[in-house]
Amino acid sequence: MGAGTLAGRCLSALLGLGILAMAASAALADPLPSWQAGEAKSRILAFVEATSDPASRDFVPVAERIAVFDNDGTLWAEQPVYFQLIFALDDLKARAAEDPSILSSDALRAAAAGDMKALLAGGKEAIEEVVAVTHADMTVEAFQEATALWLRTAKHPRSGWPYEQMVYQPMLELLRYLRDEGYKTYIVSGGGLHFIRSYAQKAYNIPPEQVIGSVAATEYQLVDGKPEIMKEPEIIFIDDKAGKPVAIDRAIGRRPIFAAGNSDGDFEMLEWTSSGPGLRFAMLVHHDDAAREWAYDRDSHIGRLVRGLDEGPERGWLIVSMAKDWKTIFPEAD
Amino acid sequence: MGAGTLAGRCLSALLGLGILAMAASAALADPLPSWQAGEAKSRILAFVEATSDPASRDFVPVAERIAVFDNDGTLWAEQPVYFQLIFALDDLKARAAEDPSILSSDALRAAAAGDMKALLAGGKEAIEEVVAVTHADMTVEAFQEATALWLRTAKHPRSGWPYEQMVYQPMLELLRYLRDEGYKTYIVSGGGLHFIRSYAQKAYNIPPEQVIGSVAATEYQLVDGKPEIMKEPEIIFIDDKAGKPVAIDRAIGRRPIFAAGNSDGDFEMLEWTSSGPGLRFAMLVHHDDAAREWAYDRDSHIGRLVRGLDEGPERGWLIVSMAKDWKTIFPEAD
Repeated sequence: MGAGTLAGRCLSALLGLGILAMAASAALADPLPSWQAGEAKSRILAFVEATSDPASRDFVPVAERIAVFDNDGTLWAEQPVYFQLIFALDDLKARAAEDPSILSSDALRAAAAGDMKALLAGGKEAIEEVVAVTHADMTVEAFQEATALWLRTAKHPRSGWPYEQMVYQPMLELLRYLRDEGYKTYIVSGGGLHFIRSYAQKAYNIPPEQVIGSVAATEYQLVDGKPEIMKEPEIIFIDDKAGKPVAIDRAIGRRPIFAAGNSDGDFEMLEWTSSGPGLRFAMLVHHDDAAREWAYDRDSHIGRLVRGLDEGPERGWLIVSMAKDWKTIFPEAD
Repeated sequence: MGAGTLAGRCLSALLGLGILAMAASAALADPLPSWQAGEAKSRILAFVEATSDPASRDFVPVAERIAVFDNDGTLWAEQPVYFQLIFALDDLKARAAEDPSILSSDALRAAAAGDMKALLAGGKEAIEEVVAVTHADMTVEAFQEATALWLRTAKHPRSGWPYEQMVYQPMLELLRYLRDEGYKTYIVSGGGLHFIRSYAQKAYNIPPEQVIGSVAATEYQLVDGKPEIMKEPEIIFIDDKAGKPVAIDRAIGRRPIFAAGNSDGDFEMLEWTSSGPGLRFAMLVHHDDAAREWAYDRDSHIGRLVRGLDEGPERGWLIVSMAKDWKTIFPEAD
């Protein structure tokens, strides 16, 4: 009895202190410090508050707070070409140095010589030949050890930083802010599933089960009596364009309420997300900052953005200007 | 200062009370009340305690506490045939009553007449014809509304209960116990992904993103200008046997540490799970209770279990006897 009364009084005292502390921290902390004050930041904050505040008429239960993010060009850079392709070429060169006989075709020789033009001229078949040598006939575990090592040691040609540091600071803050407000954050990328998983936890705090990507065949095998998942050369699913909503339905089974991308490969994902009932949010990162990052959109061979720029605004999608809306681009000083 | 001291004293008092309360509840509450005292129950409790207690040498971080469950015959019944097949036949009959011309083949006529023998004689093609009529050319949403309605209204031929009540009470307790101890519980089933999702949240408290199943093709389409995911007739992935580890790697990206099944279709999932480093748990539900459920294993056309019975025990897998290890089978009184 006495203990109960003491406990009750103490609880009130502690709750009072707790509420004061929380109120103070909410007033002080800006969840998006790398975002410039302005329309982009205000719209993000307003949406997240409206969907996470139980008193709001746009409140969304935690289980349905699903946010999906494209990766290349949305969470990290994608120039001069997708980093996964640079990994594949580096890996191919290293393998060829050990055993030159693996360069058994024009496409592989062009790739190992770094002749991107000749490689891309070979089209899908040429890329698949490179993937077959660098992404197959090994366990998923061995592949991910190799990619994780490359991502933290190989250097980006322009910045000189490890590739895993070429992530966008404002997007890291957005991911964290959404999670703090009860959102589950997913990557939905045209890049390879196992490649992205090898660094997503470290770089984005996104666990492997929240990574959706393009998929190569895998096979369950006993290797020296030990069960393993082996990577095979055949690409069985491309997670791009209309493939993104299909992959989200297969992996998550819910329509997201928040989607972020940067190219027309994300159009259908944003369209599907923003057409559901209730409040929705769709945004495109516009690469318009040649000084601090890169400037490209309508005519780019990578991250081409035409339809999103033309139709996005009238659909209510936010176009984020890297130049105007972001105080910093990368975690390192620009 | 004064407030801080008060808070400190209060915190100690409350913590003391809390620890007493927790100790009392732990001593009183049995997380698996429908399991008979004995080896099966003891082994489960010992494994979960060893992997979730930070002081244990077998402690596993929360992120890696992944538990996978087969569905048919493991979480709910699968006799006289898989419930999804009964749904398909009921649905086909209802459609044929509206428009008899849809019964355009021997297989469809046999199915609508409930002639299971003739239908099964038609093999995979016959089943695919039924799936094409009952599981395709509709949105995922419309399909799941239809299956959810059927699951809560159609009656199982023997028990007379709605199918969604044909779940195993001891397994519901096990799912909940694992989740209470920080495990993430997944379904990994040969059944259809969208079918299982239509009741998994309600029946098992398992959200759609933690359901892995067999997959039919889907397509992103604008239907009257509204973006939808449409179901197509082609089956593109069978989540059975060696397909289970492959599907787990694709969806989760981690090797589970706990796996439960009931047939040789689960063999590779249990083999892969139990061969990883550290403490692992694999179990098979053995249907040996003709009085309260069904008794079948080596010669059954459904849920055939041969290799698991022969090799399971020497591999350290737990064989759970429904007759001896379970006090009750279904949530309703037996």
